[in-house]
Amino acid sequence: MKKIINKPSDFVEESIQGLVKSHPEIYAFAKDNKRVITRAKKSSNKVGVVSGGGSGHLPVFTGYVGKGILDACAVGSVFASPSVDQIASAIRNGDNGNGVLCILGNYGGDVMNFEMACEIVASEGIKTKTIIVADDIASASNEEKLKRRGIAGMIFVFKTAGSLAETGASLEDIYNLATSANNNVRTLGIAVSPCILPEAGKPTFEIDSDEIEIGMGIHGEPGIKREKLRKADLLVDDLCKRIFDDFKLNNKDKVSIMINSLGATPLEELYIVSKRVHENFSKLNIEITKSYVGRYATSMEMAGLSITILKLNHDLNQSLLYPSECPFWT
Amino acid sequence: MKKIINKPSDFVEESIQGLVKSHPEIYAFAKDNKRVITRAKKSSNKVGVVSGGGSGHLPVFTGYVGKGILDACAVGSVFASPSVDQIASAIRNGDNGNGVLCILGNYGGDVMNFEMACEIVASEGIKTKTIIVADDIASASNEEKLKRRGIAGMIFVFKTAGSLAETGASLEDIYNLATSANNNVRTLGIAVSPCILPEAGKPTFEIDSDEIEIGMGIHGEPGIKREKLRKADLLVDDLCKRIFDDFKLNNKDKVSIMINSLGATPLEELYIVSKRVHENFSKLNIEITKSYVGRYATSMEMAGLSITILKLNHDLNQSLLYPSECPFWT
Repeated sequence: MKKIINKPSDFVEESIQGLVKSHPEIYAFAKDNKRVITRAKKSSNKVGVVSGGGSGHLPVFTGYVGKGILDACAVGSVFASPSVDQIASAIRNGDNGNGVLCILGNYGGDVMNFEMACEIVASEGIKTKTIIVADDIASASNEEKLKRRGIAGMIFVFKTAGSLAETGASLEDIYNLATSANNNVRTLGIAVSPCILPEAGKPTFEIDSDEIEIGMGIHGEPGIKREKLRKADLLVDDLCKRIFDDFKLNNKDKVSIMINSLGATPLEELYIVSKRVHENFSKLNIEITKSYVGRYATSMEMAGLSITILKLNHDLNQSLLYPSECPFWT
Repeated sequence: MKKIINKPSDFVEESIQGLVKSHPEIYAFAKDNKRVITRAKKSSNKVGVVSGGGSGHLPVFTGYVGKGILDACAVGSVFASPSVDQIASAIRNGDNGNGVLCILGNYGGDVMNFEMACEIVASEGIKTKTIIVADDIASASNEEKLKRRGIAGMIFVFKTAGSLAETGASLEDIYNLATSANNNVRTLGIAVSPCILPEAGKPTFEIDSDEIEIGMGIHGEPGIKREKLRKADLLVDDLCKRIFDDFKLNNKDKVSIMINSLGATPLEELYIVSKRVHENFSKLNIEITKSYVGRYATSMEMAGLSITILKLNHDLNQSLLYPSECPFWT
């Protein structure tokens, strides 16, 4: 296992300690919990926006703490939900007296633990609302949309909600915008090679040297199908078609796209993919107003990528472009 | 060869087409050369700052075109210098009538082609000065500093020169600041696993499954030594010691650091490394004023990382923090 780490059991603590030491103007540890990261400067007079989830996906989740995005985040172990205590602490730390919007990915442990944490903080007088992001079209059919997993589309929900919160909007209004973002976002990914969990020391899955898997989850959850690696354009056309089949987009709609590397896949390949996505949207007369290309939601050194489409309305577009202070969002 | 690409011979053209399509507010193709990228909005009344080099290192070189950094960039084939024509075009496109500072890495082909291109544009009345960045301490001794290769430290030179140019400074003053940056930057890297060149289709080097190479270049140039993978802290201590031995830093000096992934190495590992670098500098009472952690100068999907130290003075610090508009610099 060729990782630049110390003891595998210290992987999570040391990586978030490094995050805070590297960017002390952005991040801080919560005083009451070493697995909770807050903004370095606490906000006031705004609704808190809080997330949490397993480690191994940086910048997701903790990296998105910062002005204009999240207020606090609970950090689980690698690919594992944070505990109820950790999440409750993140909510308390993210609260500024105006209630908290929790945004999480649709994974059993996260959903259960956030629910219990929200009950605990409710008894302390903190009002919360929760958005469970479910953007991965490979993980369930459109009819069973609520069963879908949350992947890179989460970041569009973090950002739009975080922006609106910064303007002093109410919890209800932020919840409504985040719901709209969640309803209007779709992601489909492919896996090319596995990652290795630091404590397990072995690959999360096996795949042949000429194969990819369409729709595999970011923890190695089974996808739609395995197939031989094809030329990028053919592959992108297939992924776009699957997204268009799932998601009614109309001539003259405006969208934002995210071409996300799962880790090892380099920028050059992402831009080759982005080029073809732009060509496909252009043919349909759908305007891409802004493209995000890079590493936004990863599985450590896994190779592969995902394509996320956010269908925009005026409010979503404005929130997406609102300024933020975060090393992972320009 | 498991890459998400089309024809290997189209790799460079398609990736920069994707870059421009994805960020049309930042980048544009030069009208006279399809291997030259300029700013989408040409500047006026400022000195131009221009670079160029081989492909396969995104965001280096082309990614750093943008307000506050570069004006134009010549794009070579993978790991190969741009041609004299391409460089001359980049200089012409980067010129706003006030002369051009060329900043390049210290590689034979690049140095020769930039020199010839500068002669050509001189005959057209464009004044240039050139900075050859040589920050890689593994590639030659301190006594033979001019033989060192240019790696991630280049980006600190791009940024500081680009910032000062934006303020309307003279070519002479920008050259002096960039020289100061070049003299005060040191980088040392390690390679963990190779990348594959798209057209060659095979790894750039071979390395055992439990080995790393200290000081290997970003094109697979031989480093200082191969050794068994050690714990991150021991490895970082060794790298820091080699940098401190090369580069006299004093108690109360201020520095900026860049912890750069060569591609596949994930953010979690970079932050574990950054934590230890911070601890080592703190022991020496040297202040790290800003840390850049991420993928800044890569070799596609190569695993490994580099540590860059820029010793700051007032002007370098101010230029580093000057605003820019570029997807790869926050």
